[in-house]
Formats: sequence, C-alpha cells, structure tokens
Amino acid sequence: MNIVNDDILRSAMTSHRRIVILTDGYSTPFVAKTAISILRYRTDDVIAVIDQQASGQTSQQLLNAGGNVPVVESLSAVDDADALYVGIAPPGGKLPDEWRSLILEALRRKIDVVSGLHDFLTDDHEYVSAAAKSGALLIDVRRNRHKSTAKRYVFRPGNLRIHTVGHDCSVGKMVASLEIQRGLTAAGHDAKFLATGQTGIMISGEGVPIDCVVADFVNGAAEELVQQNEQHAFLLIEGQGSISHPAFSAVTLGLLHGCAPDGLVFCYEAGRNQVKGLDNVDIPPLMDQMLAYESVANLRHPCKIIGIAVNTRNLTAEEANTELLRSEDRFGLPACDVYRTGADKLVDACLALRAEVAAR
Amino acid sequence: MNIVNDDILRSAMTSHRRIVILTDGYSTPFVAKTAISILRYRTDDVIAVIDQQASGQTSQQLLNAGGNVPVVESLSAVDDADALYVGIAPPGGKLPDEWRSLILEALRRKIDVVSGLHDFLTDDHEYVSAAAKSGALLIDVRRNRHKSTAKRYVFRPGNLRIHTVGHDCSVGKMVASLEIQRGLTAAGHDAKFLATGQTGIMISGEGVPIDCVVADFVNGAAEELVQQNEQHAFLLIEGQGSISHPAFSAVTLGLLHGCAPDGLVFCYEAGRNQVKGLDNVDIPPLMDQMLAYESVANLRHPCKIIGIAVNTRNLTAEEANTELLRSEDRFGLPACDVYRTGADKLVDACLALRAEVAAR
Repeated sequence: MNIVNDDILRSAMTSHRRIVILTDGYSTPFVAKTAISILRYRTDDVIAVIDQQASGQTSQQLLNAGGNVPVVESLSAVDDADALYVGIAPPGGKLPDEWRSLILEALRRKIDVVSGLHDFLTDDHEYVSAAAKSGALLIDVRRNRHKSTAKRYVFRPGNLRIHTVGHDCSVGKMVASLEIQRGLTAAGHDAKFLATGQTGIMISGEGVPIDCVVADFVNGAAEELVQQNEQHAFLLIEGQGSISHPAFSAVTLGLLHGCAPDGLVFCYEAGRNQVKGLDNVDIPPLMDQMLAYESVANLRHPCKIIGIAVNTRNLTAEEANTELLRSEDRFGLPACDVYRTGADKLVDACLALRAEVAAR
Repeated sequence: MNIVNDDILRSAMTSHRRIVILTDGYSTPFVAKTAISILRYRTDDVIAVIDQQASGQTSQQLLNAGGNVPVVESLSAVDDADALYVGIAPPGGKLPDEWRSLILEALRRKIDVVSGLHDFLTDDHEYVSAAAKSGALLIDVRRNRHKSTAKRYVFRPGNLRIHTVGHDCSVGKMVASLEIQRGLTAAGHDAKFLATGQTGIMISGEGVPIDCVVADFVNGAAEELVQQNEQHAFLLIEGQGSISHPAFSAVTLGLLHGCAPDGLVFCYEAGRNQVKGLDNVDIPPLMDQMLAYESVANLRHPCKIIGIAVNTRNLTAEEANTELLRSEDRFGLPACDVYRTGADKLVDACLALRAEVAAR
C-alpha cells in the first residue's frame, strides 16, 4: 500500500467505477452530504449505498439523490465493488466504531477504501495491515503534506478565477461551483472545477483538502492548486466555511487569498440565521459579509461579487421564486438556486466578467 | 525525554536561568529576531550568544540588545548552561546543517535544546536518542496537537482583549504587545501577554504556535488560549502576519476571530512599502488594511482600532517624530514607537477603551 504520494492516491479515485457508499445509520441530509454529492455527480460510478435500516429502498428514496441506486444491508450484498467510500462528514470527523469490521472486510476483498474524515485510516495499524495484505488502496482524502508558502503568483492573463463564498458552512458552495462549471462547459467554454474539500476531491479525483493544511501553508496550497490549472479559461474554485465563521474563517481567507479570484459567487441558505453546529450564534447580516468579502479579496487581487447562489431547500417553489427576486432586488445581482432553477444566470455573469476583465 | 505534552514542555522554559543563544553565522537583524527578543525580554536569563565570527563582542554590539551578554565561539566557552535556544527564524524554517554537532554536544551535556523552527528537533532520531541518554529536554516550541474547533465562546465581561495587527510580518507586533502589557502592569493593572509565535512563547513560556496549527483548528486554538486566561483584566494578544499578506492571512484572521478582541493596535514599519520576503509585491494602502481589519473583526465581536504602533527603525529621531505626528493626524489615533517613545499613549488608549466598554 502506497501512502507516500497523496496526489497519486487521489487520482486513483477517478478509476473507480463500482463504488459502494457507506452511510449506515447516518443517512441524514447534513451528515451524509458527502454521499449525496457523490450520488449526484458520480451517479454512474455508484452501485450501492449501505444502510441496514433502509435496505430495499433506492438511494433517491433514502437520500434524494442517485435515482435507482439500491440501498443494501451489507457489503456481501454487492458483487465486484472496486471501492468503498465513507459517505459521511460527522462533526468531529471520527469514524463510527461499528464500521470497523465492514471496512476490514472491504480491505480483505481488495476493495479500495476512501475516507474524507479528519481521523486517518492510514494511521490505523489494523487497516494498514489488511490493505497491505490484499493490495487494496487506503485513501485518506484529507491527508496532505503541503509545506509551501504562497508567493503571490501572478496568474496567466486569460485565466478567470471564480470562487464561491458563503454566509456559513454547508450552504451549497461546492454544488454552485460544479453547476456553473457544467454550464460553462455545456456552452463550449474551457472550464474546470477545483475541489478544496473532501467531497469535491472524491468527485473530481483531485484538489486540496484545504482545511487540513497547516496554517502557514493554507494560502500556498490554494495558490499552487490554481497555478497548476491556470491553462484553463475558467476555474471554478470551491469555497469553504465563511469569512464570518467563528471556527473556520482562517480556512476561508487563506483559500480566498491563495486563489486570488476575479469574481465571487455569494452563496446563502434562505432562512438560515444561525451558524450551523454552534448554539445560538447569529450569522451577521449578509450585506456586512459581502462587504467584508470584497474588502479582503481586493487586498490581493481586483475582485467583485458577480452573483448570488441561494439555497432554497426549506422553501416551497413559490417562496423560492420570491426569495430569488427579493435577493436580486436587494443586492442588484443575478440570483439562482442552482438545484431548482439551474445556474444559467451565474454562467452569464462569469462570461460578462470575462469580457469586463479583457477590456481593462 | 517527554514529547507527549507540549504545554508542560513549554512551561519548562520558564525555569531556564542560564540560557545560551545560538545564532552562529546568522546574526542579522531579521534572521536573528528571536535572539534579539530573548535578549531584550529575558536579559537576566541569558549567559551567552554563540557566533564564532563575533566572539569577544557583547550581544549589544552584535545584535543591539542584551547589554553585556558575551558573544562566544562555542558551547565549551560557557559553564553551567541549562539551555541552548535556537535564536533564528530563517525563511523556510530549516536548521542550518552546520549546527548539528553543537546541538548534539549540548544534549550530551544535559543542556535542554529549544527550537522554534518548522522542522522539529523531535523528528530527528539522533537528537532524540542523545536527549534520551542524558535526560536533556528537546523542546519544539511550534509542535502542537490542537484539534478543537472554536465554539464562539462568550468571554467573561471585564476581560478586555487587545490584539496587535499589522501591515506585514516582522513589524513589531509582539514587542508592542509586550510593551503595552508592561505599561499596564507598571500602572497597577492586571495585564497578561499571550504569545502566539515561537519567540513570544520562548519569552513567556506559554502560548500557542498558531502558524503551525492545522487550518480547521486555528480559530479554536486561539479561542482556547484566551479562554484559559480570561480571569485577567487585560490580555495583550500577539498578532501574526497581516490581513493582506499573500501567504499568511489565514493565520492572521483565524487568530483575530479566535481571540475576539475589543481593541486593535495597528502596527506598521515606516517606509516599508513592499511585503517582506516576496519580490516586488506592494503592500496595500494602510487605510484599506485598517478598514479590512475592522470589517472582519466586527463580524465576530465589537471592535475598533485604538492606536498605532509605528516601527521607525529606519528613521532618524527627527524623522520618527514627524512620522508619529503625521500618523496621528492622518488616522486620528494615538501613535507611538514603543522602542523609542514608550507605549504610554497606547496604555492610555487601553484604559480609555476599558471605560468605554464598561459604560456600554
């Protein structure tokens, strides 16, 4: 088992075509958000989801994603799996104890195991030993050895960088980036998604697990990721946390300064007024956050907010439309719910920004 | 040798009374800034500086600090040393190869070795083995295991937090914090300095090496440090990097949000217009930075800039006075060079802020 080169290991994920996703006992929307996104963006590569209680359902019924992918009771119910993906991102980042035997079973059957948790599988002697015996790969998506500081690299003119930022965690920054990238690609443009979190890396097979980089090297890791991809016309760089997040703002700003975006897409969830995962902590007003984002972004590179991605999951269709109109009116910017209405307006905003930057 | 509990190891530093500082071949003001600050703030605990080329001089002659502390050729020239402190902070954070035999000699003589470099002594088998044999302590000041996210703790009312921030690295944030703390203490107030960098930790024997914490836990490490010290009336929290620093802004913001200051002291070096250590990168205008600091700080806690600490090291006395007057006029805030003029005005600004906060 090779744990030396994390990049090579991550790229191995793109070869997985018979993925089983593990969410057993944790199939709730927030905890299983990794599973949901893999089901949405790698639907054809997934053959099953494991959750004993929901066995017999489809993944669409259980997690509202993936269509007819079956939910099964155990690994023995699937043939020819090539990988087991840990589909959860629990607070604290620990692997549930009760999953140990299942993971060992996978490794013994030479099924690669992929995890995005803070606790590394590759630090567990039993897993390492089982993987070594069978030749299965143990892939810790968050493991990294970034140790370069940012150099304030001057990116290639013609490379336009669009970065999603938000008012909190888990509001849809990755999804907005992916949907805008898809829209630009469908319109014939050269656009690439750059992952900065575990789920995005599992989807795209590359990226930087930015929240696990040592603080001095956060900006540098982001800068390096962008530099390696500056040949593209558009880069859609997944955002993390929030500039106002009491716990994760360091990650947010390091990423923002490292990728030096030309444009920001501001993401928020309608109706969410308190920080997810903290008790009774109000989220500062959206306008204050937007001003703060533009203020700090422009310390690095000329940048402005070009559109709004509203997550309306808790609204009816009619309420969602009202919210989008209100948001456009209030901020004077195009607003989409990329799930509900598509990302067309944000795609157009990227193209308009490109024209504006080219004319400078 | 104990490398399990970093906090206990760091506190061992406060017992060192016969310190030898190692700067051999690197005794320039920026690279040897750790040595200079230890000489300034722990003068009575230092018995020698090692630099072969400058042997026979005093530390005052070589580094402009420490008075009559002798500069010697080698460790054999000093008796009864209890610790060897690595006195440099080179870009890249590597220990010079040519120092290996000297460090091994210290460990064999049961002299503790203290380092603030990114490369850990405790990762070197030869050092570990030598320390284990003699019983000397190997102290890596930057080593840490912080793995708690910030909770947005509500600090005790009556605990006033003053944080130094700056327009770049190495402009005197630690020194400003220490001088204000001394001034408040001298005036009879209960004020404590909280270190967040290697030199500050070597001086005070505690603190958090914030730039070496994993990104997700930066805010949390700062919050925990402050929480553990909230019984004090004033906390002077050492700042790091700059909100505009292309490489280190993640550290800066995580620390700022973690410590949730009531007041900021803005530090800059007169005449420095480009980022130290990067080629031809202009520092954004001071006013833009000050607005950015207040904008992001207030996302966490009500906060304002209460004064300016100007580093005038490259100016004549007359030029320095002009610069301080111009700064006060331009920003409408009290300005000091804490080295040259003392920190009285900033001490007064802290007291005025306390009165203002109490009256809210």
